[in-house]
Amino acid sequence: MQTIGHFINGHTITEDGQTQPIYNPSTGEVSKQVALGGAKTIDEAVVAAKAAFPAWRKTPPMKRARVMFKFKELLEKNADEICRLIGEEHGKISHDAAGELQRGIENVEYACGAPELLKGEHSRNAGPDIDSWSEFHPLGVVAGITPFNFPVMVPLWMFPMAIVCGNTFILKPSERDPSAAMFIAKLMKEAGLPDGVLNVVNGGKEAVDALLHHSDVEAISFVGSTPIAEYIYTTATAQGKRCQALGGAKNHAIVMPDADLDNVVTSLLGAAFGSSGERCMALSVAVAVGDDIADKMVEALQPAIQQLKLGAYSDKENDFGPVITGAHKSKILEHIKSATDQGANVIIDGSGAAPTGHEQGFFVGPTLIDNVTKEMDSYEAEIFGPVLQVMRVQTMEEAIQLINEHEYGNGTCIYTRDGEAARYFVDNIQVGMVGVNIPLPVPVASQSFGGWKRSLFGDLFMYGPDGVRFFTRRKTITQRWPSAAIREDKQFSMPTLG
Amino acid sequence: MQTIGHFINGHTITEDGQTQPIYNPSTGEVSKQVALGGAKTIDEAVVAAKAAFPAWRKTPPMKRARVMFKFKELLEKNADEICRLIGEEHGKISHDAAGELQRGIENVEYACGAPELLKGEHSRNAGPDIDSWSEFHPLGVVAGITPFNFPVMVPLWMFPMAIVCGNTFILKPSERDPSAAMFIAKLMKEAGLPDGVLNVVNGGKEAVDALLHHSDVEAISFVGSTPIAEYIYTTATAQGKRCQALGGAKNHAIVMPDADLDNVVTSLLGAAFGSSGERCMALSVAVAVGDDIADKMVEALQPAIQQLKLGAYSDKENDFGPVITGAHKSKILEHIKSATDQGANVIIDGSGAAPTGHEQGFFVGPTLIDNVTKEMDSYEAEIFGPVLQVMRVQTMEEAIQLINEHEYGNGTCIYTRDGEAARYFVDNIQVGMVGVNIPLPVPVASQSFGGWKRSLFGDLFMYGPDGVRFFTRRKTITQRWPSAAIREDKQFSMPTLG
Amino acid sequence: MQTIGHFINGHTITEDGQTQPIYNPSTGEVSKQVALGGAKTIDEAVVAAKAAFPAWRKTPPMKRARVMFKFKELLEKNADEICRLIGEEHGKISHDAAGELQRGIENVEYACGAPELLKGEHSRNAGPDIDSWSEFHPLGVVAGITPFNFPVMVPLWMFPMAIVCGNTFILKPSERDPSAAMFIAKLMKEAGLPDGVLNVVNGGKEAVDALLHHSDVEAISFVGSTPIAEYIYTTATAQGKRCQALGGAKNHAIVMPDADLDNVVTSLLGAAFGSSGERCMALSVAVAVGDDIADKMVEALQPAIQQLKLGAYSDKENDFGPVITGAHKSKILEHIKSATDQGANVIIDGSGAAPTGHEQGFFVGPTLIDNVTKEMDSYEAEIFGPVLQVMRVQTMEEAIQLINEHEYGNGTCIYTRDGEAARYFVDNIQVGMVGVNIPLPVPVASQSFGGWKRSLFGDLFMYGPDGVRFFTRRKTITQRWPSAAIREDKQFSMPTLG
Amino acid sequence: MQTIGHFINGHTITEDGQTQPIYNPSTGEVSKQVALGGAKTIDEAVVAAKAAFPAWRKTPPMKRARVMFKFKELLEKNADEICRLIGEEHGKISHDAAGELQRGIENVEYACGAPELLKGEHSRNAGPDIDSWSEFHPLGVVAGITPFNFPVMVPLWMFPMAIVCGNTFILKPSERDPSAAMFIAKLMKEAGLPDGVLNVVNGGKEAVDALLHHSDVEAISFVGSTPIAEYIYTTATAQGKRCQALGGAKNHAIVMPDADLDNVVTSLLGAAFGSSGERCMALSVAVAVGDDIADKMVEALQPAIQQLKLGAYSDKENDFGPVITGAHKSKILEHIKSATDQGANVIIDGSGAAPTGHEQGFFVGPTLIDNVTKEMDSYEAEIFGPVLQVMRVQTMEEAIQLINEHEYGNGTCIYTRDGEAARYFVDNIQVGMVGVNIPLPVPVASQSFGGWKRSLFGDLFMYGPDGVRFFTRRKTITQRWPSAAIREDKQFSMPTLG
Repeated sequence: MQTIGHFINGHTITEDGQTQPIYNPSTGEVSKQVALGGAKTIDEAVVAAKAAFPAWRKTPPMKRARVMFKFKELLEKNADEICRLIGEEHGKISHDAAGELQRGIENVEYACGAPELLKGEHSRNAGPDIDSWSEFHPLGVVAGITPFNFPVMVPLWMFPMAIVCGNTFILKPSERDPSAAMFIAKLMKEAGLPDGVLNVVNGGKEAVDALLHHSDVEAISFVGSTPIAEYIYTTATAQGKRCQALGGAKNHAIVMPDADLDNVVTSLLGAAFGSSGERCMALSVAVAVGDDIADKMVEALQPAIQQLKLGAYSDKENDFGPVITGAHKSKILEHIKSATDQGANVIIDGSGAAPTGHEQGFFVGPTLIDNVTKEMDSYEAEIFGPVLQVMRVQTMEEAIQLINEHEYGNGTCIYTRDGEAARYFVDNIQVGMVGVNIPLPVPVASQSFGGWKRSLFGDLFMYGPDGVRFFTRRKTITQRWPSAAIREDKQFSMPTLG
Repeated sequence: MQTIGHFINGHTITEDGQTQPIYNPSTGEVSKQVALGGAKTIDEAVVAAKAAFPAWRKTPPMKRARVMFKFKELLEKNADEICRLIGEEHGKISHDAAGELQRGIENVEYACGAPELLKGEHSRNAGPDIDSWSEFHPLGVVAGITPFNFPVMVPLWMFPMAIVCGNTFILKPSERDPSAAMFIAKLMKEAGLPDGVLNVVNGGKEAVDALLHHSDVEAISFVGSTPIAEYIYTTATAQGKRCQALGGAKNHAIVMPDADLDNVVTSLLGAAFGSSGERCMALSVAVAVGDDIADKMVEALQPAIQQLKLGAYSDKENDFGPVITGAHKSKILEHIKSATDQGANVIIDGSGAAPTGHEQGFFVGPTLIDNVTKEMDSYEAEIFGPVLQVMRVQTMEEAIQLINEHEYGNGTCIYTRDGEAARYFVDNIQVGMVGVNIPLPVPVASQSFGGWKRSLFGDLFMYGPDGVRFFTRRKTITQRWPSAAIREDKQFSMPTLG
Repeated sequence: MQTIGHFINGHTITEDGQTQPIYNPSTGEVSKQVALGGAKTIDEAVVAAKAAFPAWRKTPPMKRARVMFKFKELLEKNADEICRLIGEEHGKISHDAAGELQRGIENVEYACGAPELLKGEHSRNAGPDIDSWSEFHPLGVVAGITPFNFPVMVPLWMFPMAIVCGNTFILKPSERDPSAAMFIAKLMKEAGLPDGVLNVVNGGKEAVDALLHHSDVEAISFVGSTPIAEYIYTTATAQGKRCQALGGAKNHAIVMPDADLDNVVTSLLGAAFGSSGERCMALSVAVAVGDDIADKMVEALQPAIQQLKLGAYSDKENDFGPVITGAHKSKILEHIKSATDQGANVIIDGSGAAPTGHEQGFFVGPTLIDNVTKEMDSYEAEIFGPVLQVMRVQTMEEAIQLINEHEYGNGTCIYTRDGEAARYFVDNIQVGMVGVNIPLPVPVASQSFGGWKRSLFGDLFMYGPDGVRFFTRRKTITQRWPSAAIREDKQFSMPTLG
Repeated sequence: MQTIGHFINGHTITEDGQTQPIYNPSTGEVSKQVALGGAKTIDEAVVAAKAAFPAWRKTPPMKRARVMFKFKELLEKNADEICRLIGEEHGKISHDAAGELQRGIENVEYACGAPELLKGEHSRNAGPDIDSWSEFHPLGVVAGITPFNFPVMVPLWMFPMAIVCGNTFILKPSERDPSAAMFIAKLMKEAGLPDGVLNVVNGGKEAVDALLHHSDVEAISFVGSTPIAEYIYTTATAQGKRCQALGGAKNHAIVMPDADLDNVVTSLLGAAFGSSGERCMALSVAVAVGDDIADKMVEALQPAIQQLKLGAYSDKENDFGPVITGAHKSKILEHIKSATDQGANVIIDGSGAAPTGHEQGFFVGPTLIDNVTKEMDSYEAEIFGPVLQVMRVQTMEEAIQLINEHEYGNGTCIYTRDGEAARYFVDNIQVGMVGVNIPLPVPVASQSFGGWKRSLFGDLFMYGPDGVRFFTRRKTITQRWPSAAIREDKQFSMPTLG
């Protein structure tokens, strides 16, 4: 059985040591092993990254960008293989993996703009014959820790930007589905990246802790659940590292009485059940304003849901696949049960799903629950499964309050035709990413990704303009050239340039 | 004796409770008392600030900026009184206080540009008929904790920007010299600021801790010493708050063999001894490259130093005044003594300074120490007194290494005429603010202020463009308006807009 | 009788020479004379401006901005006097003049942000150890030619930005109402502007032509009618000058069936009749989509229009005042008559208006014309009077086509509640400034003002970010410092930095 | 013999009609014919471009950029063929053509950043509940007219940016060497560009005039000589078109006494003689400050020049090739003769150059002329040949004055080690592109290209940030959504949002 090792200083490393099984979630079988790197492996990677830093930071941004141009080509050329690796270990259907990859490539494309993105601000005559300007320097060795649900996209949110800014990088991908990340790291080498600039270390908590405590790691970028995000953030910042840690979500859609119901239904299907709901931007709660629209929506959703197909990643006809592990499946089923127990109305229950030929796979069918209320456990938690819960409120104000009181503030959406309703919602909602008639408002690569409240720890969002700022450090120069002819008098006051 | 109270919700509050003496450092006498607010006072201020937030955040930036325009007028009109308050409690000479105030006003001027500074980024057709844009929203209630050495400038680095961005603010100024901060807070009210938007709470560690632990405080901006900065930063971030904490410094000037020596000497005098060296940008170490320039520099410095005048703040003829307390004076004298003990050459010793008529004031005379080496305690520590230490190296490389190995990375300067030397230094020095023939490279208000290494904890610099970003939170909207004629098909793949 | 002279090099100049009467349009009487400068006067002004340029361009932007801060204070302090001068010569009611002034002050406020606005773009390591950056340099002596209808606002669109960018300026205000411009020019001197940086030359075509042909004038900014704008633009560009020339307008409002009719009516009143319709952003055509909304709108407008009050500028109860001259009044009456003749339905005819006590003033009452069609002369022309014409179409598409086919493309507005309608309109309308439920979408000072098609000649809009770019010239520096240790080989290929 | 036709609406068009010979300048022989399109051909191209516009402008920038990503790949894949086509018709050596191509590709790379570059400026709460933002819309059909000397690079300065901004394009390349432009236009189609978005019409003055007078052409971008540039600019602007027209140059290098002479000599060789001096950035005048450095420089240049090799494009050992035509060769020889006649000292005379085997080619050898003065014809004119003229001045001030008095202001360079000298030169020189120790300071693609004075007609530079602005038109939207609960009062004053 294949063991996935590490990728350090341009070479694949397979050491003896602890490993952990990787499952094929469609079949429930172990398909590979992954090495679990510890402090020693992390240190090797840091040493390599630190050694590669001085030359890489001095490489002009235009040249660094050209590695990204080539990398984009290679990602596109190898798209099928990447989607296969994703499907095999994560389970998402190939068209979904292709969408994930495309979103990742968008970030590579954005990184190609490094010469523009890294421009500093130049103040000519900040004072008399004094110029001042800011430069944005790379930080040094930085690291990314990424989740199982987007094994390619989230790494591509991080390392292309970090690297094009002049940093060297250590990626710790999810130990559940590390193969795609390993594969694309090697494509970076093929694209011309010098050895040591990008390294991949596989592992679990030990590897994470080693990164958090290594004195030569300058910054950590993380995506995962909120408790871990909080741990990462407080540990990293206490160690003097820069950190951004993205956590959980509970994304609500407000359905206004004037919404275009056909669009609402078709778009909710994908937003709630796509990728089995294992997306931090999954729309898991539909808040209908008024019982009239609620009833119509629930009625229209039912036949549509019943036609959904689930199965293995390789069949494009499938709408979505299994969840990541058996343990995770059990947790989802518990949530469905608790909703029933606490008085919600489970209209369609996907607990028993078992696609023919994949009976041992970790499948949960699409589940629709009506009359959910805010005290229910299934509402408070991020279920991360194919479960759409419907809530009913009487006013938009009530819907906004509901969302603002939830601990998460990642994404949200309003369905309406009304300009005023949309503007009011956007202004008053305490959520970082807001859709107007867009169920999954994942920002394009030229904007930035991030939630509010306990969905993000840190000052800056991920990728886009904020990504540039996260992976660089400002240096401000103030310069004057002495003229032989002029002698200045001593100055004891606080000097002012103006 | 006057007791300085608090300024909450537009009113001066004087409660019973603990107080602490304020000294006039020129005479060594207690001149006033300052109230020491605790958790209750902080809570009152937070309640006021929170209540003021909803209306203030909705006030258009252009209107918020107009308060700043008026505030600038009032600061200029009341400049003499502000400088008097600074001089009386801090001791700095009136011309120096005027420079401090001017630097603060610069930041008010910059905040007047809010309509430009707060512009979001608009992506038309991020996808087909889909627009996306980012808005920069205020955080809510935010706080600033400021040091004794710039009782007006550092508060003005923080609250104008925070407030013009739509936040409401609590200032905790230094308990050593709080009067000027109280005074300017009232000018903000006079300028038209609604009550509760700016509040001042006086106090010490208890007030600081109350701010750090209050759940309604969203962000903390701090300037002080490194140990406190680190405490503030780790505590605030562990509490889920945004934080930037600026700490200590040890600012070196490299004097190259081709430097214009006359300029070096006159500019070093002000940079080392101005404000008694109690500036985080004070140039306290001159690193001469080659003994030849070192000898000439030391020789030229001596007569110049001997002519410096020290005394009370009110006499403009004085070059600098006392240090802040008797305890701080003792610490400086210990540093001078330790330098002698450890083998340095104390050429001019200011330990016994006692200006006529101010014999009880906390004065330390200008001190010049040659042949300092990096192992000495006086080199490692931030002395924060009128002490200039000279080091000798043989190459620029050696000088750069020295600076890069110091724990602080706030400011530095190179004196040279050579373009290549300057560019090489700027590129390789691990310091946030770099001067080329500028001894105190404090960035202008349109750039940002911050150090590297243990001189700053946090992602973003203070004031300028980084200040805008620190005091705002990104919200990204993605918007599409459904067309009645078009029905979209359900989409289970990860949606891509492009 | 007072003669308004020129303001050159900081001094008021009254020469013998040609003059022209200035009327008080409320009474129809001549109140003052204005000097008509010719080539000689222009040359004096250019000489002064050219002499002032070298020192002014080297003055740091922060210092230049401080003149603007002071100027803003003075404008506010002198607001009543400025509004009186406007009212006396232009006739607009004092509240309207105050609005004009406020809009002008907005641009002064924006100019205060010069240190931010003038930042160049800095590319560190554009190539290996090569830096490159752009600086934005002032052009030199530049000129503004401004119209009668905004005697203060339009000059304030131009000279504060031009001057804060480092240029020196010659203003040629309208000869109909030059006093307010002269007054504020003197305030600039009081604000600390060095002599010669701002000059005012009064006059007519001779002065204009002298500016157009003076070889030391680098750029011309113009606002007026389209035929003159075209003349100015083609002449200036043929002379090698930079030019932006803003011309006429015909601003349509589309009233959608779902529009909030009460808001439409109240906002149309001000937008159509405010300042007697003598605004290039006046909303002079209301295009109703469907006869139903058209009928309701026309019905609701009538009683509202009949309550409008017209009279002299000094009575705040008045809604609007006279038009600028008797000749202009006649032209407006002709347009009303032609509409009748060509088959439109003149519902309210203001031709005979004669407010008691001002029977000789140049008054035209509010006029409402229904059933206007696109072939009518009154539709094709810019009437520039208090005349609101109503057109009827059956679809939004038809309304858009109508607007896109008009030769002007200055401003437009859609009244609707529907997000899709607004977005579709904004995207497809060929107009530079678009309002959604905003009848006069004059951009704020931090955006820029300009029309499309024959409403603007030139590449860049006026004021705001485009204003900065119009009044500056890019200079791009590419810099490398030779290292003594490295000898480069000769290079005959086209050099590439990357 | 092959006839080069046109490329319209995705197809190569070969019509009957006028043609003109294309020479191989290395042999002096006619190698192909080129079709000379007239008004009819231009109209066909405009019709195609206009038809393609509506769909292309609505294509999201991210998708438009992806055509550029693919185009870059294809340019790199076809580099050898492109360089061969350039060499065959222009004569430049293959390594030089490769450099040209690389510089062109840089601009394609920059255009890939369209999603970032086209971002508008968003003002939330420009007024109370009023948002305002600017969008940058494409102009429509735009055209580029390009010179013989960079048959690939200059087209790539224009059409990628124009097209990625959403415009459709007509290229009129030089009729001397049109094949490479035709070739890359077809690569754009291969990259996925819809038909009609990019069209190539070959021809001479008739085609140019047809473009200038076609009412559907919105903008013209031109590079060529100053008299033609001026004609293009005044004609286009008189026709209401946007225009930028780049003309001639006379680029001086100031050689300061402290310059690194070895670097000066090697870099001058390439800058003066590379591409036979047929570059608008060629460094054709070396101004030595002081006779000492002048003498040393002239002495060092001579042996270096004598080792230069000239010959056909295909031999990489050659340093440069022939000039473009026999007529141009004659004009260069006349300039050399006139210099002799007017008293200059022709040290090396390349007039008789005739590389073995290419005796009929249009070759001029490297020519060095000393003691040139500003009255000489050879100084006033742009020679555009391999002729380096040396002038001698006594001070930098004198050198600056010389340059500032020349009618051109394209590029310049200072050789020095001194920071002050460089900064003073940069600040005071009236030239658009300034090198410090960089002889050909062609800005990188993320900056912009343009000269001052009579080297550029228009407001905006070419490519880079200015290129984006040139090829887009600002539209500013101001939006408010009416709230049912609030009725506004009519407003007759000039509305202010703040």
